[in-house]
Amino acid sequence: MASVFGRNIRVSVFGQSHAPAVGVVVDGLPAGFAPDMDKLRALMKRRRPGQNLLSTQRAEADLFEVLSGLADGRLCGAPLCMVIRNGDTRPGDYRELKTKPRPGHADYPAGVKYGGFQDTAGGGHFSGRLTAPLCLAGGIALQLLEAEGIRIGAHVRRIEGVEDEPFDPLAPQLDRLSEGYVRVLDERAGKEMEAAIDRARLDMDSVGGIVECAVTGLPVGMGGPMFEGVENVISSAVFGIPAIRGIEFGAGFAAAAMRGSLHNDPFAFRDGRVVTLSNNHGGVLGGLTTGMPLIFRVAVKPTASIFLEQRTVDLSEGTDSSLSLKGRHDPCIVPRAVPVVEAVTALAVYDLYLEHLKEKKIWS
Amino acid sequence: MASVFGRNIRVSVFGQSHAPAVGVVVDGLPAGFAPDMDKLRALMKRRRPGQNLLSTQRAEADLFEVLSGLADGRLCGAPLCMVIRNGDTRPGDYRELKTKPRPGHADYPAGVKYGGFQDTAGGGHFSGRLTAPLCLAGGIALQLLEAEGIRIGAHVRRIEGVEDEPFDPLAPQLDRLSEGYVRVLDERAGKEMEAAIDRARLDMDSVGGIVECAVTGLPVGMGGPMFEGVENVISSAVFGIPAIRGIEFGAGFAAAAMRGSLHNDPFAFRDGRVVTLSNNHGGVLGGLTTGMPLIFRVAVKPTASIFLEQRTVDLSEGTDSSLSLKGRHDPCIVPRAVPVVEAVTALAVYDLYLEHLKEKKIWS
Amino acid sequence: MASVFGRNIRVSVFGQSHAPAVGVVVDGLPAGFAPDMDKLRALMKRRRPGQNLLSTQRAEADLFEVLSGLADGRLCGAPLCMVIRNGDTRPGDYRELKTKPRPGHADYPAGVKYGGFQDTAGGGHFSGRLTAPLCLAGGIALQLLEAEGIRIGAHVRRIEGVEDEPFDPLAPQLDRLSEGYVRVLDERAGKEMEAAIDRARLDMDSVGGIVECAVTGLPVGMGGPMFEGVENVISSAVFGIPAIRGIEFGAGFAAAAMRGSLHNDPFAFRDGRVVTLSNNHGGVLGGLTTGMPLIFRVAVKPTASIFLEQRTVDLSEGTDSSLSLKGRHDPCIVPRAVPVVEAVTALAVYDLYLEHLKEKKIWS
Amino acid sequence: MASVFGRNIRVSVFGQSHAPAVGVVVDGLPAGFAPDMDKLRALMKRRRPGQNLLSTQRAEADLFEVLSGLADGRLCGAPLCMVIRNGDTRPGDYRELKTKPRPGHADYPAGVKYGGFQDTAGGGHFSGRLTAPLCLAGGIALQLLEAEGIRIGAHVRRIEGVEDEPFDPLAPQLDRLSEGYVRVLDERAGKEMEAAIDRARLDMDSVGGIVECAVTGLPVGMGGPMFEGVENVISSAVFGIPAIRGIEFGAGFAAAAMRGSLHNDPFAFRDGRVVTLSNNHGGVLGGLTTGMPLIFRVAVKPTASIFLEQRTVDLSEGTDSSLSLKGRHDPCIVPRAVPVVEAVTALAVYDLYLEHLKEKKIWS
Repeated sequence: MASVFGRNIRVSVFGQSHAPAVGVVVDGLPAGFAPDMDKLRALMKRRRPGQNLLSTQRAEADLFEVLSGLADGRLCGAPLCMVIRNGDTRPGDYRELKTKPRPGHADYPAGVKYGGFQDTAGGGHFSGRLTAPLCLAGGIALQLLEAEGIRIGAHVRRIEGVEDEPFDPLAPQLDRLSEGYVRVLDERAGKEMEAAIDRARLDMDSVGGIVECAVTGLPVGMGGPMFEGVENVISSAVFGIPAIRGIEFGAGFAAAAMRGSLHNDPFAFRDGRVVTLSNNHGGVLGGLTTGMPLIFRVAVKPTASIFLEQRTVDLSEGTDSSLSLKGRHDPCIVPRAVPVVEAVTALAVYDLYLEHLKEKKIWS
Repeated sequence: MASVFGRNIRVSVFGQSHAPAVGVVVDGLPAGFAPDMDKLRALMKRRRPGQNLLSTQRAEADLFEVLSGLADGRLCGAPLCMVIRNGDTRPGDYRELKTKPRPGHADYPAGVKYGGFQDTAGGGHFSGRLTAPLCLAGGIALQLLEAEGIRIGAHVRRIEGVEDEPFDPLAPQLDRLSEGYVRVLDERAGKEMEAAIDRARLDMDSVGGIVECAVTGLPVGMGGPMFEGVENVISSAVFGIPAIRGIEFGAGFAAAAMRGSLHNDPFAFRDGRVVTLSNNHGGVLGGLTTGMPLIFRVAVKPTASIFLEQRTVDLSEGTDSSLSLKGRHDPCIVPRAVPVVEAVTALAVYDLYLEHLKEKKIWS
Repeated sequence: MASVFGRNIRVSVFGQSHAPAVGVVVDGLPAGFAPDMDKLRALMKRRRPGQNLLSTQRAEADLFEVLSGLADGRLCGAPLCMVIRNGDTRPGDYRELKTKPRPGHADYPAGVKYGGFQDTAGGGHFSGRLTAPLCLAGGIALQLLEAEGIRIGAHVRRIEGVEDEPFDPLAPQLDRLSEGYVRVLDERAGKEMEAAIDRARLDMDSVGGIVECAVTGLPVGMGGPMFEGVENVISSAVFGIPAIRGIEFGAGFAAAAMRGSLHNDPFAFRDGRVVTLSNNHGGVLGGLTTGMPLIFRVAVKPTASIFLEQRTVDLSEGTDSSLSLKGRHDPCIVPRAVPVVEAVTALAVYDLYLEHLKEKKIWS
Repeated sequence: MASVFGRNIRVSVFGQSHAPAVGVVVDGLPAGFAPDMDKLRALMKRRRPGQNLLSTQRAEADLFEVLSGLADGRLCGAPLCMVIRNGDTRPGDYRELKTKPRPGHADYPAGVKYGGFQDTAGGGHFSGRLTAPLCLAGGIALQLLEAEGIRIGAHVRRIEGVEDEPFDPLAPQLDRLSEGYVRVLDERAGKEMEAAIDRARLDMDSVGGIVECAVTGLPVGMGGPMFEGVENVISSAVFGIPAIRGIEFGAGFAAAAMRGSLHNDPFAFRDGRVVTLSNNHGGVLGGLTTGMPLIFRVAVKPTASIFLEQRTVDLSEGTDSSLSLKGRHDPCIVPRAVPVVEAVTALAVYDLYLEHLKEKKIWS
């Protein structure tokens, strides 16, 4: 069991890649808020498959229906349920996988876990398709946070060897994020990334990358010590996105090579407000927000589904074997992961923010 | 609120650096198990302060008392409560910090969060001292896992520029881990790390590093999709250790630069068992264990408490100011973090393992 | 926030009386189990409105669709989502209620809670209609428990002054439960109850009653001390059914007037098994099952919606006022509450049973 | 596992009757509040054993120590841990119980559950002694609620056949509650109850009773639909008190015999505020508070430990047997249960109140 998230909101994700639908229930949202459905559709469009040759050719309109939680276009306090019907399903593409697990996929451990009863078509509940309901739920959270002055933006920081301009940790350039398929700060880097993805595609291979995310406008003191700190909550949400293999906050792994005198960010007053003069801490100290931008990066592995022939086992025969994948797959999931990282981060941050509001209400 | 962990076990940590005690309550442990208290004391000793010049000079025997949960030396099914009295407290050392927050510490956001009522002495509940009860609870979990054939070991993978031999991802060398202050595979690297720490100490500065952790003997299919996968649960626990700023599983951030054909680990039969021939996936696919060793690394920042003068603010005056720390501090927390990473990982893995047992019991 | 239940399974209920749909997501169900959909439909039919003159005239076929969680007709380990489209909706019937709260209903406190943004049509998320998805989820749990030899049955113990034959606490007569609209042991009592309901209907009034529930086949030692005992878990689930105002286990409130020498149930061996010779404890001691039948009763209040004119306030005018209800309402909800009590009890018992299996697996 | 309560606060209870200590950790309390320790000691005194011949002769001073969570006498935001050392322990009294389970006690199912490894001395973790830490935690909650204008008071409503004056459901007489051993509104009834207890004591028997509890000053709209309504949360807490066998809100089981026209409480304006003119709903509609007094009653069974010889089994011999208890036991637990009901109710209400504050903060 695993598809439930949150303490102050509760997000329950359901669906399989080739089931009738994927969807999400969110309990704990504020009554009275009117979600902007056009904005939500725009976010969904950024994640949508079949956009161009660089992404999977599965054609899904990703139209969603709101089954509950609204009254007269506003959140009414009841759980919000949104569903997306699965359209372009081809379960036949996946028959072989029950006995020949795909390298890099959950097929093998899922088969053991569920005793062979898992839904293998398209990866079932393990499919990247489940990021669609994550975006629906997170898209609402993004709007709720924006109404509180909190903004979240992410970009592709790296694909293969190509680097985008990094976020300025003191003032992330959220207004400069590009609108193209590969969301970047430096559009030339974006074009080079597209070229790198296309090379991998032509090689019947795939590539990974790094997504960098920034959150601005956070209050001071949000989070907590130990197990419900900002890093704990964000990482427990973000690892819910398939293909994420690492996360680092602020200077992250680079901090391991730094001395304290360099890594410590000095405090100072600016315009009557306490700030730090650098932001190696990435906006979090002791699990608590400092009021500085929250910055983190996640590592996205290369898509496991590639068209090159691969070595695997034949579980029915008990022998080593090989596999050539059919189906429709992204040569690089990183560009489509950007809105998902934003959405899932929004769920985590909104959950933390509600906890913070509760504490402020009580403690002052 | 934040100091509670777990779904199948529930760990509740309490205490402040200079309160009467620190301690932990663990609910959900199996009745009948007889913890080896000598072994637990040996683990505590590895974390203990005041071991040598390289660690804080605070002298704490770290003797613990079991208040409940045992009957005739065995776990009796009731919550296990263990406490450590704080001995060598010097609250006077910390008076200045209420108005002059230490760079790199939680002082400032905690002051805002708790409205100035937080316990500032020694960092209060945010202190590294809280890793002592984490080790107590985790030490029990380590023993419970060992009884199931699951072993956890960690080593210092890097301090400043010095690298230890990495774990073999197919067969981590847990039996070769050194017994010295800096736990390593290559004892020469350990000596160089000690020298690096000592240089930082003499410079009144600090250094960070990387800890690598391996878990062997795990069953296949432990964990789950989405939010309660292995990475989610381990990261939400491990970020409970102060000073951790990043975590990566398997190839981790390096995966971002790899192609799928290289990163995907081929399946094969060996001795009638399904294995992978490489282990870039670090033992986890789709949030589920594959039966291969679980490997992850965490980034530890340089100790925030350094003796060099630092820039900060004076909150009572509303002006920029500076600060020279007193007190007793580790020039490098990394060596003492190793047993803590093992212990906290054990809590997370044991929680996942109980979930797994439940599922196996039902689903077969 | 409130519509999420369970620790080992997680049930998330959504929907409003006049929203597009009501439904439920259940996470944590065992892969491989093939639910009997005819049986589930039969349970739904027992709860269905519009059955006769004694229940609401709202005509709902209560056909459900499974959106996810099945593969080839079996549970596949992914969350199970089931939805029921709302058909015969007449939101116009409810316009007046936004300003004139119905006595005995949640209208007034919900209006304050949600700032006037709640869905008032048909009571919104507070409607008895939400018991339909509870029955769907609980119906699956009933089948899972039955496969383990655990049976749950309830009957109408009392309506107004009419009493049914009570359950034999040592051997509840589950096989003798009648199939009619009012589920009873003594069919004559059932007929008298129907007459009592009809009298209330003709008086434009309503009546309440008592439902008695029994669970047989439980293992010994299921549950726990303090907050997750059998009574805690069952009561926290059962109070999720609208109109329940009390619950008592075993001798219940009558125990308050008994002496210990009478109330204590003596232990004895029968056929090599430990039993109690009476069952005032209702199958639970110290929060743990004893292996004897679990027996409890719940008090159901008279339906709040009556057609007699009632005194209320006009919130927009700030004056006292009166109200004559339109719409379609049950003169007595008790008969239709019986399958709901069975279903919700099944959710609670199944959650406890999974915890028990986990403990047995570990502790032996 | 079971000894953890709460969603907004988290209460973790530990200890056994004859372990070194019993205690509690509470996470999530507001920083800055200064608990009145004299008041807390006064509450503890009301629960304390050994007060007179009517209660157990175990002499426990019930002095508690605060191990963490305070700084300068105020809550500091860190988890509050309070412990009570067990003093007058006589484990020898309980040796026989491992093989001869006491009727009405958890001995038998606990032995099965924990495989014989449970702590049998004095009932171990199932002992009424665990209500001491519940009172400590709840005593803090009572003070926090009082500071918000919310008051909780309980009285013995009935012991054997003797009835106290009931609470006026529109205006509970909290200021008239007596200070004696048996807390009542009508002191003559209290004296008669004492006489009834004494008769049971002389008969080497025990009696049960009913405790009635009222909460005033609650806001409107606290709670939620379905599983986290006021009744769900309070009942899941209150059944954590050993010996409670039933709970009813407002008219409770009597509602089952009422017609809707009588049971429905009419709304009216009084002094510009919406009130109900009667209070059969006991202050809760649809799981939400209405602003009227919250009223509920709990059934307390007769103490299971009686000195009359009782029939039981000998588990080691596999035969029927008998048992004459030694040890020190209350002939009636009801008077000492009153402060425990108040304390546990305070934990539940405070948890609900925090949720309410969070919602108000967000939703307005």
